[in-house]
Amino acid sequence: MNKRKLDPAALLNPVPVVLVSCGSKDGKKANAFTVAWAGTICSKPPMVSISIRPERFSYGLIRQTGEFVINLVGENLLRACDYCGVRSGEKEDKLQKMGLHVYPVEELKYAPALVESPVSLVCRVLSVQEYDGTHHVFSAQVLRVYADEQYFDRNGKLCLEKAGLVCYSHGDYYSLGDKLGFFGFSVASDAVYRKRMQIKSRKRKKKS
Amino acid sequence: MNKRKLDPAALLNPVPVVLVSCGSKDGKKANAFTVAWAGTICSKPPMVSISIRPERFSYGLIRQTGEFVINLVGENLLRACDYCGVRSGEKEDKLQKMGLHVYPVEELKYAPALVESPVSLVCRVLSVQEYDGTHHVFSAQVLRVYADEQYFDRNGKLCLEKAGLVCYSHGDYYSLGDKLGFFGFSVASDAVYRKRMQIKSRKRKKKS
Repeated sequence: MNKRKLDPAALLNPVPVVLVSCGSKDGKKANAFTVAWAGTICSKPPMVSISIRPERFSYGLIRQTGEFVINLVGENLLRACDYCGVRSGEKEDKLQKMGLHVYPVEELKYAPALVESPVSLVCRVLSVQEYDGTHHVFSAQVLRVYADEQYFDRNGKLCLEKAGLVCYSHGDYYSLGDKLGFFGFSVASDAVYRKRMQIKSRKRKKKS
Repeated sequence: MNKRKLDPAALLNPVPVVLVSCGSKDGKKANAFTVAWAGTICSKPPMVSISIRPERFSYGLIRQTGEFVINLVGENLLRACDYCGVRSGEKEDKLQKMGLHVYPVEELKYAPALVESPVSLVCRVLSVQEYDGTHHVFSAQVLRVYADEQYFDRNGKLCLEKAGLVCYSHGDYYSLGDKLGFFGFSVASDAVYRKRMQIKSRKRKKKS
């Protein structure tokens, strides 16, 4: 064993890539921005958290309205997503600049969802934790999910693997690569394993 | 635009795959378990959150000790990680069963880190949010990071891309695939873009 000790750092990787959309209280402005830190925090009811720097333009919008939408990012959205992470919505209309479109969702009054996103999670803020650090943590309940029709199969199953979702690790964006297993594969029967991994032959893949 | 409306669900994908290690207050037992929901919540100071179901064996250990370690998972650890997510440490020694080893970290009294993990984040609990749902949210400060020597280059840079980290999306585990860009690539100069993407020719890759 040979370990190097490092100063504390935000090294939990890989992380999801998301575009968060929100709106102004006067209903005149919609904005989209990238948050570095977003995650699920509860399965039932589904809850998420996003962390936002107080100095960001959208911080004020979300504090005022208590609403946001988390839009998952496929490869086709990545360039726009990166742009929305480095530019501020205070100075320009990033949505227009990047050719993005929004649609209203009936569950919220101010925040719209992004047309170009494969899956959008409609969220209402439950609490804000103001830790003494760079980011404040917005915890929210997921009220509804909108998913693009093209990702459903004929049985109505959402095939998210077709959406080309992107992840972020240590400064770089990556596509998802090989399917390595499924939840519970380590204790699954051979029959279940072959079916879920779509293995035709009887020989099980080398154990990872 | 053609969107299908779905019931609220934990559809924020992809997510990191991690093994959390912890210890008992009497110092006699170390355990490792998988949490579905883990994420960074603040950059400086680095803070993370993990969500745990109260009925899980490790929930009590972490509540009592206020300590845990988040161990990132490379492909070599995936099978053990999945196993530690579906079996309980109350009934068996999962570490021994999966051939995993732990080492003590000087920052903590009870929770050890996993030898087989490329990067381990040593964490002390700051608060626990007991939302009325399946999971409670443990927010924690990262006190130190331990990283395996084999992932550093000769200049002392951590090359996390060599660790073969795994992500999880909608029920399945995936390797990281192609590098699609880097933070800020949408506004980078051609020279910076080519260098960071390790493109030899003068022609820029088709914009995504």
